[in-house]
Parts: sequence; C-alpha cells; structure tokens
Amino acid sequence: MIPFELTILGTGSALPTSKRYHTAQVLNVRERFFLIDCGEGAQIQMRKYSVKFSRINHIFISHLHGDHYFGLIGLLTTYTLLGRTNDLHIYAHSELPKILKSQLEYMGDDIQYQIIWHPLNFKKEQTIFEDEAVKITSFPLKHRMACCGFLFTENELEQNIRKEKIDEYDIPVKMIYRIKKGENYTLPDGKIILNKELTLPAFQPRKYAFCTDTAYLPDLHKITAGVDLLYHEATFDKSLENKAEGTYHSTARQAALVARDSNAQRLIIGHFSSRYKEVDFLVDEAREYFNNTEAAYEGMIIQIPQKRVTIE
Amino acid sequence: MIPFELTILGTGSALPTSKRYHTAQVLNVRERFFLIDCGEGAQIQMRKYSVKFSRINHIFISHLHGDHYFGLIGLLTTYTLLGRTNDLHIYAHSELPKILKSQLEYMGDDIQYQIIWHPLNFKKEQTIFEDEAVKITSFPLKHRMACCGFLFTENELEQNIRKEKIDEYDIPVKMIYRIKKGENYTLPDGKIILNKELTLPAFQPRKYAFCTDTAYLPDLHKITAGVDLLYHEATFDKSLENKAEGTYHSTARQAALVARDSNAQRLIIGHFSSRYKEVDFLVDEAREYFNNTEAAYEGMIIQIPQKRVTIE
Repeated sequence: MIPFELTILGTGSALPTSKRYHTAQVLNVRERFFLIDCGEGAQIQMRKYSVKFSRINHIFISHLHGDHYFGLIGLLTTYTLLGRTNDLHIYAHSELPKILKSQLEYMGDDIQYQIIWHPLNFKKEQTIFEDEAVKITSFPLKHRMACCGFLFTENELEQNIRKEKIDEYDIPVKMIYRIKKGENYTLPDGKIILNKELTLPAFQPRKYAFCTDTAYLPDLHKITAGVDLLYHEATFDKSLENKAEGTYHSTARQAALVARDSNAQRLIIGHFSSRYKEVDFLVDEAREYFNNTEAAYEGMIIQIPQKRVTIE
Repeated sequence: MIPFELTILGTGSALPTSKRYHTAQVLNVRERFFLIDCGEGAQIQMRKYSVKFSRINHIFISHLHGDHYFGLIGLLTTYTLLGRTNDLHIYAHSELPKILKSQLEYMGDDIQYQIIWHPLNFKKEQTIFEDEAVKITSFPLKHRMACCGFLFTENELEQNIRKEKIDEYDIPVKMIYRIKKGENYTLPDGKIILNKELTLPAFQPRKYAFCTDTAYLPDLHKITAGVDLLYHEATFDKSLENKAEGTYHSTARQAALVARDSNAQRLIIGHFSSRYKEVDFLVDEAREYFNNTEAAYEGMIIQIPQKRVTIE
C-alpha cells in the first residue's frame, strides 16, 4: 500500500509528565516525511520509534510556545553531526530564525546543509508546499499567540489501467497514458470501449488535518471538511470549558464537535493537560459527539488506507 | 542517613540513541539539589525518576556543546509555568545567557524568578559555591571548547556527642558545643575526661567529581584526589584512543587511570559513543586498571554512605 501514515511522538501539553512528551508528529505521505512540531525530546522519540528522521526535509512549527519547538535545535545539531547535506525547509513564525540565530551561529561552519525558512501567514489560509504527491496548507488557529494548523491533502493518483484489457484489445503503449487520463479507446473496427471497462477507479486522495493549539473554532470544519484523520487538541475536559476558553485551548467535547462538523473519518485527540493521569474519560466525552475518537499516545501509528472511488 | 546521592539522567554523547539521553545528573548533598549539565530531555528524565526538580537552585553547565545544555530552556520554561519565585543560579560559560537571550525574552513577563548567571573560569580551579554543607569547585578540562569539571566536597559535620555521657558526667548544656568542637571536659573534682570518650568520631566529608567532556588528563587526579565517587567520560574504547585524542574525549582505560591515580573509591563511566549498543566491554576494559568501575545508566542512583573517621 502506498503509505499515508502518522506517527505520534508526543501527546503532552506545556508541562511534560513522566509519560507524555511534548508535541511532535511525523507524517509519511508516499515516502515523503513531514515533521509537524518539534517539542523537546522529539529526536529521541524518533529514534525510539524508528522514524527515518534523516529523510525529513520539511518541518512545520505551529507556533512559538516552547513545547512545540524546543526540540528543533537539538535535531538541527544532530543533522549537522550526521553530515546532512540536503536542504531543510522549515515553515514557522518569522521570529523563529531570529530566536535560534545565536545557537545556529554557535554550530558554525560545521553545518553542511541549507536551512530554508518559510514564514507562515497567521492571517489567512495559504498553500505552503505542493509537489506531485501532496499539497500542504496552513490555516490560522485561535491561540494566545499566532498559531497555525496544517492540512495535508494527497494529490490524486492516476487511474490504474486493467492489464488484462491491454492484451484483450491489443492497446498500443502510446494510448495507455490517455486512457489513464480518462479517454475511451476506439477499436480499429470503430467500436468504442468505455474508459470504465479499461480502468480501475482511482484512489480517493487522503487528507490529514493537524489542529493544535487552539480555542474552539466553530467554523474550523470549513477547512477540515472531509478529512480522513483529524488531530485536534483536547487539553481539558468539558467541566473546564471556561479555563479552556481563557487559555485558548479546547475541551475533548469541542474537538469532537469539529470532527463531527468536518464529517471526518477519525479523530485523534491529544495535547493533554498534565493534570490528567489517564485520558480515557476524555475519549468517552468526545465519543458522545463523535464516535470514532481515540486518544493519542507516544508511539501511536495511524495508517490511512487507500480507498478506490466508489462508482455509482 | 544524611544524603549524598547522585542520580544519572543521561549517559549518551552527542548523538542520542533510543536508550541513551544526553548528559544530565542531579546531586543531592544533604537536601541541596544540584543539577549538573542539562541535555535535551533532562526535565522529562527528572519527572521519570521522581527528582525533586523544583528544589534545584543551582545548575552547572560544563560547556556549550548542545548535548550538555539544550534541555535548559525547557526547564526554565517549566519553572516559569509552575510559578517558581526562588532565585536560580546558573554556573556556565559567559556566552550562555547571550545564546538564550531571545528565548528568555520571548518568555517575557511570565518569568517570576531571578536567574543569576555565574560565568565559569576555564583557565584555573575556582571555588564557585560554598555553604555550610558543601563546597563546589570548578576546574578546567581539555575539550574542543572551553569546558569545566566540578568537584563537590561536603563540609565537615560536627562530631556527635555520646548522649549517655552527658548524663553520666552531668555535663552542662553550654559545654556541649565546645565538646563537639573537640574540647575535653574537666569534672568538678579536676579529673579530665578526654574528648575521645565523650564523642563519636566525625563523619568523613564526602566528595564527588564530575569530569566530562575531556581528553585524558594525566594530572587530573591532583584535583580529584581521594574522591568517593568519580564520574569520568569514556566516550570510546581503547582501540579508538587516537580518535579519542583527536576529538578531545577519553577511553574507558583512561577514565580508569584517572580513578586509580585519584585513589577514588568508585568510578562511574558514561558519555558513551552512540556506536556502542552495549557497554559491558567498556567496564571490563576499565576494570583492568580500576576494579570498582560501573557503567552509568539512565535512572541510576548512587548513594555515598557516611563513614566515621577511623581512629588509630
């Protein structure tokens, strides 16, 4: 299967606990590896869960609270020590390179790779990356400081041609490309073979949305509509809704409302307050509004399977 | 027992592995808690091993390679979030406050405690802290950049008076202080009771030396003479002695030579290269030269017991 796979490295909020690391995740879209946030210890977690971290070329930092980026300088240093030469793209607040400047300078000439900084736009939705496999969009969240969520949308794969039909109708190679694009095929005797007969339906493009840290945004579902997987913070339980509002965080119930309104397939909640030793009751709370909810845990891997487009 | 206890939080060198964290240790001397180096993830390790980290008021940073201080900013942030108000003393290279300046400024007004920076002297031995329980000395090591080791020497405790003797000789309270200081006691009839009879011998002051990162220093034992516990880096095995020299690190053999020449009681080796999955053979190598050697591991606790001075 062509992968679309998320690995959770940290599920805690600002205060770490003995079990929960700070926010960091790796998304593998068709063998492209994207690191989303990089809390302290992220590189150690990547080692622990055998993430191919040297293959990460793009890092996305949602905002500049330490629990979302303090692991970055250690990772950049490790890349230096490992002799990395590939460009590294970092999408973050424009202040971040300034904040890390003196530490980066201290690394000095040893650094053999280029860091390319991409400042995020915290005012409006924006496409920040696109290649043949995936399009990545940032969008503003509502936090105490400028903060972005990220939407990863797989690009459509071509339809698969049925190999047995190539032989049956003696289709020349030059036609295959056009059939994949949707054309019918006309036999020498003028008979038309419909594209539908020659191909398998394409796979549905898969979608993942990462939403932390944020207060409840009732309109967020307009951006996250139809995602296969939604990661939404659930720092608090619903009894602390006022506290959530005051600190610009969400409750498990609110995360579930976003999933429900997005018509998402699955919801993963995380960024749990250190006050909660166990989070099962947060999952229960969310399931009242959106059944397919699970709690993130360190080392959790979520694979989003490919599904063919259903033909009516 | 009055504690003199070391907790090891990280035993790796520059590259972390799935099992080894970066250098950090906590020394508890009679309920004073000293953090020695603060690699990435130190605060998480402290949670894991139930270190009373809010009671740390003094932090010692040997040098400015990232694996020895990248965990500091996260710890300072956590102190802020926990509402710390106690002064925090940090003993480090004078560049460190400059390096962390922008990150500290970003923390802004939230910080309710004072950080007092103490620049280390990398040219000569220096007393950097002293109170009634402990004296702490920094001394230069030999590394690619300015680097200090630290020697923690317990101050002498008073002799313990034998309570039964107070009753036997009807000793007035005002004399007890003087007897503890070593005086004899003269009875009303002129008979002299020797101090030795009235007191238990004092405890030997305990000593711990922390030596990382460093090339082999044949004269280091002059500073670390007579320590109860020596922590000495052993990044490499003796077959890589040239590599150790070139990178200003030590081999297990060299660590053992320092322990032997110091007439130390125990040696703990650490700061292991990521090339070593197991380190038993490094311990074996060291034991050829200094038998009482162990390998550090994450969560290791070493208690140095009190011993009374032996009277001849």
